[in-house]
Amino acid sequence: MSKTNMAVYPGSYDPLTNGHIDIIQRGLKIFERIVVAVLRNPDKTYLFDLEERCRMLREVFRDSARIEIDHFEGLLVDYVQRRGVTTIVRGLRAISDFEIEFQMALMNRKIDPRVETIFFVPSESYSFLSSKLVKEVYQLGGEVSSMVPPIVDAKLKERFRHRG
Amino acid sequence: MSKTNMAVYPGSYDPLTNGHIDIIQRGLKIFERIVVAVLRNPDKTYLFDLEERCRMLREVFRDSARIEIDHFEGLLVDYVQRRGVTTIVRGLRAISDFEIEFQMALMNRKIDPRVETIFFVPSESYSFLSSKLVKEVYQLGGEVSSMVPPIVDAKLKERFRHRG
Amino acid sequence: MSKTNMAVYPGSYDPLTNGHIDIIQRGLKIFERIVVAVLRNPDKTYLFDLEERCRMLREVFRDSARIEIDHFEGLLVDYVQRRGVTTIVRGLRAISDFEIEFQMALMNRKIDPRVETIFFVPSESYSFLSSKLVKEVYQLGGEVSSMVPPIVDAKLKERFRHRG
Amino acid sequence: MSKTNMAVYPGSYDPLTNGHIDIIQRGLKIFERIVVAVLRNPDKTYLFDLEERCRMLREVFRDSARIEIDHFEGLLVDYVQRRGVTTIVRGLRAISDFEIEFQMALMNRKIDPRVETIFFVPSESYSFLSSKLVKEVYQLGGEVSSMVPPIVDAKLKERFRHRG
Amino acid sequence: MSKTNMAVYPGSYDPLTNGHIDIIQRGLKIFERIVVAVLRNPDKTYLFDLEERCRMLREVFRDSARIEIDHFEGLLVDYVQRRGVTTIVRGLRAISDFEIEFQMALMNRKIDPRVETIFFVPSESYSFLSSKLVKEVYQLGGEVSSMVPPIVDAKLKERFRHRG
Amino acid sequence: MSKTNMAVYPGSYDPLTNGHIDIIQRGLKIFERIVVAVLRNPDKTYLFDLEERCRMLREVFRDSARIEIDHFEGLLVDYVQRRGVTTIVRGLRAISDFEIEFQMALMNRKIDPRVETIFFVPSESYSFLSSKLVKEVYQLGGEVSSMVPPIVDAKLKERFRHRG
Repeated sequence: MSKTNMAVYPGSYDPLTNGHIDIIQRGLKIFERIVVAVLRNPDKTYLFDLEERCRMLREVFRDSARIEIDHFEGLLVDYVQRRGVTTIVRGLRAISDFEIEFQMALMNRKIDPRVETIFFVPSESYSFLSSKLVKEVYQLGGEVSSMVPPIVDAKLKERFRHRG
Repeated sequence: MSKTNMAVYPGSYDPLTNGHIDIIQRGLKIFERIVVAVLRNPDKTYLFDLEERCRMLREVFRDSARIEIDHFEGLLVDYVQRRGVTTIVRGLRAISDFEIEFQMALMNRKIDPRVETIFFVPSESYSFLSSKLVKEVYQLGGEVSSMVPPIVDAKLKERFRHRG
Repeated sequence: MSKTNMAVYPGSYDPLTNGHIDIIQRGLKIFERIVVAVLRNPDKTYLFDLEERCRMLREVFRDSARIEIDHFEGLLVDYVQRRGVTTIVRGLRAISDFEIEFQMALMNRKIDPRVETIFFVPSESYSFLSSKLVKEVYQLGGEVSSMVPPIVDAKLKERFRHRG
Repeated sequence: MSKTNMAVYPGSYDPLTNGHIDIIQRGLKIFERIVVAVLRNPDKTYLFDLEERCRMLREVFRDSARIEIDHFEGLLVDYVQRRGVTTIVRGLRAISDFEIEFQMALMNRKIDPRVETIFFVPSESYSFLSSKLVKEVYQLGGEVSSMVPPIVDAKLKERFRHRG
Repeated sequence: MSKTNMAVYPGSYDPLTNGHIDIIQRGLKIFERIVVAVLRNPDKTYLFDLEERCRMLREVFRDSARIEIDHFEGLLVDYVQRRGVTTIVRGLRAISDFEIEFQMALMNRKIDPRVETIFFVPSESYSFLSSKLVKEVYQLGGEVSSMVPPIVDAKLKERFRHRG
Repeated sequence: MSKTNMAVYPGSYDPLTNGHIDIIQRGLKIFERIVVAVLRNPDKTYLFDLEERCRMLREVFRDSARIEIDHFEGLLVDYVQRRGVTTIVRGLRAISDFEIEFQMALMNRKIDPRVETIFFVPSESYSFLSSKLVKEVYQLGGEVSSMVPPIVDAKLKERFRHRG
């Protein structure tokens, strides 16, 4: 039986940004429970390994009983089926997101027609924010502490100090 | 108190298309109740007046206990407040939708930060469908009966025969 | 029987620009014959009436035996059927074109699945050119004689002198 | 002789929004002087007439010695020539802006190759803001006082109270 | 001498999808003969090598006398010249396609002005389909048998079973 | 103290194209001095190393007293601060540019609010031109000598002859 008051918010979270947190908080206005599902794709290289990414998420949401941190490998539709959920939540920042997200939403629906993807618009403050851009800024010695939670800011500084 | 298991799906519905029905059905996967809110903008000219547009909607959804047909004038955020709802549902077909819809979602949020807009992707069969295009086709003597419910198809033919 | 070596290039041509001529010349690389089909939509206001628009086209293409100037009212798919043609030719300049053109191509295919629309890319010199913009420039007393054929340039100057 | 330390920022300003002010302030980082040039197009209907639009601008910028409020009719390139300026400043909020603005910039350059248009990105707080949307909100009885200067907010309320 | 009743449809076909087949069938409405030209770029890694990709295409089109399967390396314009063809056929699904395809069409035209690229719109059923996405789905253990020919479906399953 | 009559035009210039030169010349209409700042990102592979890229730029602009060729590593905002400049110049060709450029402009502004990015539109002749596409053409044995300065054309031919 599917749980309609629950949604999955999948992503790499490498690392979590304030843009992700914004979408999660919007999701909680509609869903009783949000499962933040961290993707591990064995073919990709991450800055933070799966455990580190999950740990940062758990730390940030430790007081949020309605948010669950989980992880998955393989097809997203298989994962949501296993979890008995049929709703996927995603944020849409810009046109480039739009096309990739639509392609994935329609493909997931083709694989399993029960799965529905819904989109939230993040705060305009985060319209230009992405994990990729955040990593680039820290790697080059910059920081954008207003764009990530304090624990992520600290981890990013630590990580690039080690490398620098 | 806001009803989180309820959402408003606002629009002109001039006329209702199968694309709207597709979005409503997707909305019912998540919300217990969808209020289809027909906009009456006194500055706009409609093909079907408010009563006709509502009547077609009621006819199509007469057996759907979870769908309510309502109408409103003025600001959408005022209407959703009056209804005690905080979620607005919209469909996103294409890039052109994207920008207008985002602008409205962000403006509505500025007027009332509690109001959240979520977006569904219609079936790809309806990716090119709009009420405006449907009216143009019928007006020129064509028909797209697979694109609108039978009652709308009949009404469109009747309307343009009278004019023709 | 459909004529596959023939295509229809529909439009308002209010007025003809060098961008239209560019697309026609590209079409002649593929099709034996191009029918330039001037739309008359009774609900629209044109700067040049149907006869004037056709006359300018005939003047410009008077030495082109493979180009036919015709006009139509009503549904484009009805017109191409009457002409025994199944290919529609259109130019794609920019993203905004893209969405409207795709919507029309898919809707026309829905009305008559035999009808195929193909798109050409105009020379980058005309990437920003539109009949609408040309009219605005002349109306304000400017001119863009490199953007329209001489006869159209003359007609535009005459038209706006009369009004000015 | 052209004044390179001066730029024209043309628009309808019907009415001025905080998004316009944001672009003007960015322009002042580069140019010694910005001419805010209010367009009067006799074919268009404005909410505020030319005098009102200019008066609101003068009021808002009365202490800004480097900002001049002017108005024009006809071709923008003719106006900038008369003023001895060759740089036009515009804001780019979104994709839809992008295409229209590029078309105009390239057409203006075709009419007068000396004229250059440069684009600024407004603060992300104003990414969804437009004069048109502001008017719609006030007309429907809403207000977005954080989006317009106080004098414009007051004028909009007064204007729509008279009509309401 | 150029063969105007013939067109080249170039691509990687890694692997062939129903979206490609849709475009080929639309091309056959206009051209007497379509050359499906499989690209081998020595700098790229393919899932299926050149021979396998060609074999799948030959299998699928073995009864289509008007379709030729060929392959090429190097510049597309050199290949079409060698084949005596001047028309390139491409499908346009979405905005992201649009920009890349336009860039290539204009660059090819710059290298050889005789070469013309024309675009078809695939069925809306394939609007979200790409070889890349198909590979990702099969690699993760999913399948989308309605999106590829049976022989490709079988090959994909075989390939990823070997790896899995 | 910031130099407002000076701007930085950052990029990889791997290699310089006529599109870059077009933007630089437009920039010189507004700024007394343009610093062409060649990026060296240690994580990226370039066709031409930093020295070669700078040498080609110096060669092309050797008679331009108002153009300075410089190079940098790390954060662009750190570099412009070191140079005492606050204006970054960029070209906008197409929608795909638009989103990436906006994201970077807003992020740079977040890191240092004094930094302003302004955008120029290149000549429509270069609307499809990019260093990446130029390299691909030469690598495959083609040439686009109208798209790059003679010295770059020669260098590209030499480089790919060595490899070929």
